[in-house]
Amino acid sequence: MSKKDHFSPKPGTTIDLSDCDPDFHETYDKDAARAEVDRLQVQMQEWQERLYAEGKQSLLIVFQAMDTGGKDGVIKKVFSGMNPAGVYVAAFKAPTPTELAHDFLWRVHPQTPGKGYIGIFNRSHYEDVLIARVNQLVPEKVWRARYEHINAFERLIADNGTRILKFYLHISKDEQKQRLQARLDKADKNWKFSIGDLPVRERWNDYMAAYEDALSRCNTDYAPWFIVPANHKWYRDLFVTRVILNTLADMNPQYPPPEAGLDSVVIPD
Amino acid sequence: MSKKDHFSPKPGTTIDLSDCDPDFHETYDKDAARAEVDRLQVQMQEWQERLYAEGKQSLLIVFQAMDTGGKDGVIKKVFSGMNPAGVYVAAFKAPTPTELAHDFLWRVHPQTPGKGYIGIFNRSHYEDVLIARVNQLVPEKVWRARYEHINAFERLIADNGTRILKFYLHISKDEQKQRLQARLDKADKNWKFSIGDLPVRERWNDYMAAYEDALSRCNTDYAPWFIVPANHKWYRDLFVTRVILNTLADMNPQYPPPEAGLDSVVIPD
Repeated sequence: MSKKDHFSPKPGTTIDLSDCDPDFHETYDKDAARAEVDRLQVQMQEWQERLYAEGKQSLLIVFQAMDTGGKDGVIKKVFSGMNPAGVYVAAFKAPTPTELAHDFLWRVHPQTPGKGYIGIFNRSHYEDVLIARVNQLVPEKVWRARYEHINAFERLIADNGTRILKFYLHISKDEQKQRLQARLDKADKNWKFSIGDLPVRERWNDYMAAYEDALSRCNTDYAPWFIVPANHKWYRDLFVTRVILNTLADMNPQYPPPEAGLDSVVIPD
Repeated sequence: MSKKDHFSPKPGTTIDLSDCDPDFHETYDKDAARAEVDRLQVQMQEWQERLYAEGKQSLLIVFQAMDTGGKDGVIKKVFSGMNPAGVYVAAFKAPTPTELAHDFLWRVHPQTPGKGYIGIFNRSHYEDVLIARVNQLVPEKVWRARYEHINAFERLIADNGTRILKFYLHISKDEQKQRLQARLDKADKNWKFSIGDLPVRERWNDYMAAYEDALSRCNTDYAPWFIVPANHKWYRDLFVTRVILNTLADMNPQYPPPEAGLDSVVIPD
């Protein structure tokens, strides 16, 4: 299997995260990667303007990761600079009582992007086959049925003109330790540290198994998963930027044609 | 009356838009204004990060203008660069049948910013005392009552921790003509031209009267209006950036304190 297959696995293959090196960074170093991201972002922003102007297609981008995996960081880095008129972030936290009184996709569906928009999910419906599974928040029968529910839901919105990209930001357990320690040590970062996150770290292997199942079972041609080598933040940002740019170019949105009859228009004083 | 009073009128005063010079630009030229915006945006982005991290206050920013007044342009210029995790744009177009089946604030209320967020309104509930009045979409008795409804609604969200800034982007009728002509003439802009916009231009004076009433009656200390000289896009952007930056600095959001008990935390391998 080539490196590409590890990070952009073919639908139907069983994903083994231990095959995926979270330190991978091609031949880039930090400066080269940052420069390349800056260069690609100019193109990405132009495509986003076109997508919005065209108003016919949507792009949904899902980010999942363990704590400190870089969801907030990649969103800030990759999407700052885009026109907020056409880009929004939906963050999914622990469900409220009202949300829990409905099916698990009920709160997600209203957040999917309308035509012309890029919608970014910071966590998503995948939490319902991750933490819900590891912490046994619902019976196994319930979470096992959800993979198919997710595939059907993603097909629904894909069939309606939405491209879907799903990124799992893959860090090593040791990298997480270093990042948690940094949060603890740095005065301007320690407000981000929650003691409540530590029990999640203790279930690392259970989470990896849950991720492998979610990624293997819900990796479709209409809603592919990408496993992003994320120990190096600069390579993570480059990887994600590249996939989004290539997708936008493939969607190839166009500025709309002018209204008929403009030739004879005279603007009155 | 000083220039400042024209563009930032005191609550309770009657606003006469013919007093407000849409060409005003202090002593700035384009380059100086653009450089100043770039400088101020760095500070504004830092405040926005703090606002989001603090999670205790909200900022609602309303943009209103005649066609080509620059709502889309100012949003792109001033807010690109902010982290989209904490900033969003709500655009209010012609109401749907479902929206019309409710009171005029029903569709607006859910779009107000939660704690930590900056919410930007591209058009707003003010359309319901502007186009609704000029085009007689509702009886006079109905739109006349709305000024008080708006003031009460804005007080509600202000009392809940939301700062409100309302910008009327003020262009001259002649500047609008030039901008419409430019849309017509430039191949990459003519998709923005709508023949349906021309009747609105013909009602220019009626709209100015409607704006003067709305701005005069709904200019409160908790939700002030600013009349932005907007014939020069670069001065418009500077004016808006400055007001927002000063407001954020006055709100003075702070990073939260760390959780208690961090001193004794040891991160397990």
